[in-house]
Parts: sequence; structure tokens; C-alpha cells
Amino acid sequence: MQNEPITTVAFQGARYAFSEIAAKQFFGATITCIPCKSFDNVFETVVNNQADFGIVPVENSLTGSIHRNYDLLLEHELLIVGEVRLRVEQHLIANPGITLDEIRTVYSHPQALEQCRLFLASLPNVEPVASYDTAGSVKMIRDNKIMNAAAIASRLAADTYQMQIIKEVIEDIPENFTRFLILAVADKKLGPADKTSIVFSMKNIPGALFKALSVFALRDIDLLKIESRPLRGKPWEYIFYLDFAGNMQQEGPQNAIRHLKEMTNLLKVLGSYPSGRSGENNK
Amino acid sequence: MQNEPITTVAFQGARYAFSEIAAKQFFGATITCIPCKSFDNVFETVVNNQADFGIVPVENSLTGSIHRNYDLLLEHELLIVGEVRLRVEQHLIANPGITLDEIRTVYSHPQALEQCRLFLASLPNVEPVASYDTAGSVKMIRDNKIMNAAAIASRLAADTYQMQIIKEVIEDIPENFTRFLILAVADKKLGPADKTSIVFSMKNIPGALFKALSVFALRDIDLLKIESRPLRGKPWEYIFYLDFAGNMQQEGPQNAIRHLKEMTNLLKVLGSYPSGRSGENNK
Repeated sequence: MQNEPITTVAFQGARYAFSEIAAKQFFGATITCIPCKSFDNVFETVVNNQADFGIVPVENSLTGSIHRNYDLLLEHELLIVGEVRLRVEQHLIANPGITLDEIRTVYSHPQALEQCRLFLASLPNVEPVASYDTAGSVKMIRDNKIMNAAAIASRLAADTYQMQIIKEVIEDIPENFTRFLILAVADKKLGPADKTSIVFSMKNIPGALFKALSVFALRDIDLLKIESRPLRGKPWEYIFYLDFAGNMQQEGPQNAIRHLKEMTNLLKVLGSYPSGRSGENNK
Repeated sequence: MQNEPITTVAFQGARYAFSEIAAKQFFGATITCIPCKSFDNVFETVVNNQADFGIVPVENSLTGSIHRNYDLLLEHELLIVGEVRLRVEQHLIANPGITLDEIRTVYSHPQALEQCRLFLASLPNVEPVASYDTAGSVKMIRDNKIMNAAAIASRLAADTYQMQIIKEVIEDIPENFTRFLILAVADKKLGPADKTSIVFSMKNIPGALFKALSVFALRDIDLLKIESRPLRGKPWEYIFYLDFAGNMQQEGPQNAIRHLKEMTNLLKVLGSYPSGRSGENNK
């Protein structure tokens, strides 16, 4: 990545969303992040060369794969050039000097409130109130100087708005990770590619998936992820998401993919890229 | 299901949530639904015999598998006894007599607002405002007689509160289905079981998954779903969710599961049950 003038990364969400945190974890703090209103906009921004890279979440450890972004990968000619695993940590944030027992209202996105349900239930006299986004709630209680309220958001949001973290890591289930993909119009070679993602579909004849996986097993290629997704309106056809160890410069994966094409209706190689190391608190 | 005094079904969410709609689609309108604050509460309510059945979402066509409910299935001794596929349809709902051009504010859960993003963007002078739940927004604009606002929610919410649907099916991506599981403390035999769900884990040695699937392929047993999920802190170990055609009364599946146990660290049969037909608009 050295000597590469990395300039702009498109992401979906408000400023200081977890996608922006993931982008900065991957590229460093000096990049320019472009907030987009939707995942579609992220893809379009990269396709139209208005950003060097895009970043989208594809998988969360609690809520599963984000199929919409796999659909967009099939619809657009973008390559996966990297990945980031981000620990999603929620904190209780208030104006400086405020203590926990002064809080009467907690604002955040409903998903964040839900993730911290047990913590909120443990606070007497506190009402959770839904808002449109996590970081925006921090800004709101700061701008309006609401002293008996707190927000649930990331550390970046607290730091950005110079607000105080009253209580750290308040999620009920702390093992909450999100996997993000880095996208580009062409292969940018952000490190040694040791992982490849593909999407394919085949008729669901008995043993079809077994035959598909045999192309990897016969070549001792390790599978890192496999997921089936039924195709709507075609009850016996499936899309498969598969990640395997290796890259498309290697002979084994090349042969496996050529072999797999003999039995698939559709097959798209989404990219070979360096597998992501996890962020903070990773074991 | 005839002659079975079906009484109570526990679900997560506010009244008239999509889980309650799914429960009524499955059991009929005469059941008593018990709202629970969390998925954990749904499981506990059924385990403690405070409800005959529980219903939980496990998979959404846009947002993927809900891993939390698979975790809870591993933690509790409940059986899957049925499934429901529900088309999630969002409607724009207002007080009777109100027209679209009078609307200035649209209230709903942020996920519903997000699902209808393109529709909302097409309305001039309308501000989306996040609220805690979809049906609750309908009740709120009714109780407070807010005439220049609408809510986004289900048809059941509109009908329940005798409110008007101004515009039907306003999601950007209409193919939005959620799959729910029906849970009970013992097998209730709600129909001929043609599908079985299992969870298993094995060391990720090369070809391990291939060998696991061979136990089904060798017996011509059809796979209906497969999904891998990495185990946190154990980078080379995975949990697999697998659904196959058949039930555990049959010799083939019994042999396959005994064979699979030879190579797994963990294996749990979650239940054999009738596969779900989809609700409205299903092809």
C-alpha cells in the first residue's frame, strides 16, 4: 500500500458510522471518506470513478450475511481487493461531567438499543428513545446541551464530538463483529492475495453441491465460507457464496474454477485479496 | 393440527409485529399471541411452559441468517416443529381521508424507513422520522390525530387501528421474505415432516466439509440449506447450519446422521418438520 496515493473511500451511512471506522482501520486515518445514502450509491460512486475504493459490510456475527451487497457484487463489475473485520463496540456517551445516575433518556438507533437491551434494563428510571443513527444522537445531545440524556455510539463518535464515555462496551453479547469488503474497479493489489470469493448457482439435483465442492477437495483447496441462498421463484435453484484459500494466479484454483464451470449455470469470481485481520480485541 | 387445542404462541416484538402475522398465518387467527421483549424471552417462555409454541425469525432474504436464534436453539432443549415463510410488505398508512400530498412526516422503525428509501425520496417535502416500531407509529398518529403525517407498517397494523393505506407495497426491493421457525418443548407433529435441520461443527481440515456432505450425497439425500459460520476465537473452526429433505424417522437420514457423527465435534438435530409454504405473492 505504500506510495499508493489513496484518496477517497465511499461508504454507506452517516459520518462516523462503523463503515467509516472500518475504512480508517484498513487504510489509515488520512483517507477521505465519502458518505453515501445507500449501498447502491457506494457501488455507483466507485464504478463512476468518483472514489478510489468502496467499503460495504457483507456479514455480521449476530445478524448474518447482507445479501443485498452480494446482489450488488453480481450486478456491478467491481472486484473485491481487501477485507476488514471490525469489532462493533457500543458505548454510553454523555456531555462532560454527567454521571450515570443523572441519565433519564438514552438515544440511539434501535439496533444499537437492542444490542444493549440488558444494560438498559439494569438502569432504573431510564427510557430508551429511538433515533436515526448512533453518532447523530451524540451530536444531538451535545448541540442541544441535553444534560440528563446519553447516547449509544462508537468511540469515534465520542471523540469526534468531544463527549464523555460514561460506560464502555455495553452490548449484551460482546462478540459482535462485522466483515467489510473493500471494492475497486480494477485489482489494486493491497497485499498478497490468500483468499478468493466466488458466487455460483447450479440445479439442486441430489448431490450437486457435493460435486461442486469436490472440485476443491480433489485439489486440497481449503474452504473458508460456504452459504446457500434460495433463488426466489425458482424453489429448487440456489445461489452459493463460497470463499476459498488461494488466489486466481495459482494453478490449483484456476483448475478448480474451470472444473466448477462444467456444472454451474452461473459463476462469477468476485476477487482474490488478502484475508482480513480482525481489529481491536481480536484473538 | 385439527382437534389440537392450540392456545398460546410467544413472539418477539410489539403487537402486530411481523412475527405475530407469521404466527397467525401458520396457526390461524384465533390463537393467543404473547409478546416478548427479546428472542431469549421467547425461548424461556416456551421452555417454562408459559406458551405452547414460540416463533422466531431465522433468515431474511435481504439481511441473511439471524445467528442469535441459532445460538439460542443450541442453548435450549426446544424442537423445531414447523416453519413459515412470510412476505414482508410495507404500506404507507395515515388517518382516514388524508391524501399523499398532505403528508409532511413519515414515522417508522429505521429498518422499514430504509427498506422504503427510494419511495420516500420520491416524495417532496416529506421528512422520515425514526420510531421504535412500525405498528406503534400507526397507533401514535391515530391517538394524537396527527393529520399531516403517515406511518410505514403492515396491513394488519392499518386494519387493527382502522387506519387508511394511502399507498401499498412501497419497499424498494419487493422480494423481501422472512423465514420463521415454530418451536415447542416436544414434537407436536403439525403435519408430515419432510425437512430436518441440524447444526454441527468440525475441524476445518482440507476437505472436511466435502466429507461431511458425502454422508448425504452417498444416500441421495437432498440438501436444502447450508451455511458456515466461523467460531470466534477459533479461526479454523466453523459451525454449519444444514437443512436436508427427509425426517429422522427414516432410515436414510438416521444412517447419514450416525455417519456424520463420526467426523463432527458437535452435532445437534434441531427437529424434523413440514417445510413451509410461502405466504401471499408466493410463486
